[in-house]
Amino acid sequence: MVNTHERLRELVGDLWNNYVHHEFVERLKDGSLPMDVFRYYLIQDTKYVREMQKAVIEAASKAPLNEAIDVLTAMFSNVERGAEVHERLFRDLSITEEEVNNTGFNLVNYAYTRHLHYYASLGWPQFLAAWAPCMWGYNEIGKYVVGTKNALFNAWAEFYASGDYWSRVEAILRTLDKYEVTPEIERAFRDSVNFEIMFWEASLRKDPTIFL
Amino acid sequence: MVNTHERLRELVGDLWNNYVHHEFVERLKDGSLPMDVFRYYLIQDTKYVREMQKAVIEAASKAPLNEAIDVLTAMFSNVERGAEVHERLFRDLSITEEEVNNTGFNLVNYAYTRHLHYYASLGWPQFLAAWAPCMWGYNEIGKYVVGTKNALFNAWAEFYASGDYWSRVEAILRTLDKYEVTPEIERAFRDSVNFEIMFWEASLRKDPTIFL
Repeated sequence: MVNTHERLRELVGDLWNNYVHHEFVERLKDGSLPMDVFRYYLIQDTKYVREMQKAVIEAASKAPLNEAIDVLTAMFSNVERGAEVHERLFRDLSITEEEVNNTGFNLVNYAYTRHLHYYASLGWPQFLAAWAPCMWGYNEIGKYVVGTKNALFNAWAEFYASGDYWSRVEAILRTLDKYEVTPEIERAFRDSVNFEIMFWEASLRKDPTIFL
Repeated sequence: MVNTHERLRELVGDLWNNYVHHEFVERLKDGSLPMDVFRYYLIQDTKYVREMQKAVIEAASKAPLNEAIDVLTAMFSNVERGAEVHERLFRDLSITEEEVNNTGFNLVNYAYTRHLHYYASLGWPQFLAAWAPCMWGYNEIGKYVVGTKNALFNAWAEFYASGDYWSRVEAILRTLDKYEVTPEIERAFRDSVNFEIMFWEASLRKDPTIFL
């Protein structure tokens, strides 16, 4: 018996590896990613995370209560941990809250976050499927990148490779596993994997940021 | 300068004391509350809490993100602690999940939980005001009842008197304090204090439970 989340990963085939071993990731690992690209990425990612959190709460308000509490607890119980890493990266790269707020979304980021809001409005299992690639993939990426010679990339990776982060991912995957794979769920998952790949590419290109 | 939550408490005057020093509370403290009344109350309260939690998530989905995360984190981060106390009480009184699910709401409980859902649909500050009397009052009641000779009532009271529980209340009150007192907010708060009083009275009477 294959779990829903394992089945979804099989269904997207090579796309998963294109995401978690994207050139962006390889360059985090070998330390060759230009710092201005990492800086650009971090700002876009911060904007992404805020929209993602809003979508989680929106979707949770439509979920069975025990599942909503399980996922929200996992998501928000060690929120300081991620915040600490973030603050360090922001400090070292001189990124301020103000700069994040005054920077627009690039097209990929805007489309990806609207996609999350769309699935949050459709329903809980659909949202979980759309959300899983981001949370799950970053854990694999973190574990892969840890050990990079760049101290900043390493601090970033250690957070996603941590047990705290994994416990969030686990809550999402075990909740997703309560639902069957449907064509809608498969599409939500696959589209998000594609968005993750496009997110790396937009960051490497430092796409213009126009969507406020 | 008086905070919003302190001002709301002033505005309801004696009603607050009628709630936190209700006959039901006094009989928890002196140990004279009949066990069948406590058992009846616990089942109604469990049904109440589930609806309240749903309403919290619903209201949080309309809140500014930082406030939503602050309140949800406080609310759900030590959720096991309350569950342990609950399990002990349920075990000692032979209450099962099934019995809770197969028992209806009494009229007061049904009206009170619909009132919470109503304010959750109206907006975040309105909901916080409607929610605060339950969370805040139970902390005062817990501290007042702790030391009762009845071990079961004491276990119940210790949970609400605990630092874990107080940290939840604090998150709600500091969030409420970001908003001004309006007539709508005053009414939401006052009605909930009245509902709490009626909740004790319906429990003392063991009102019929008909609303599923």
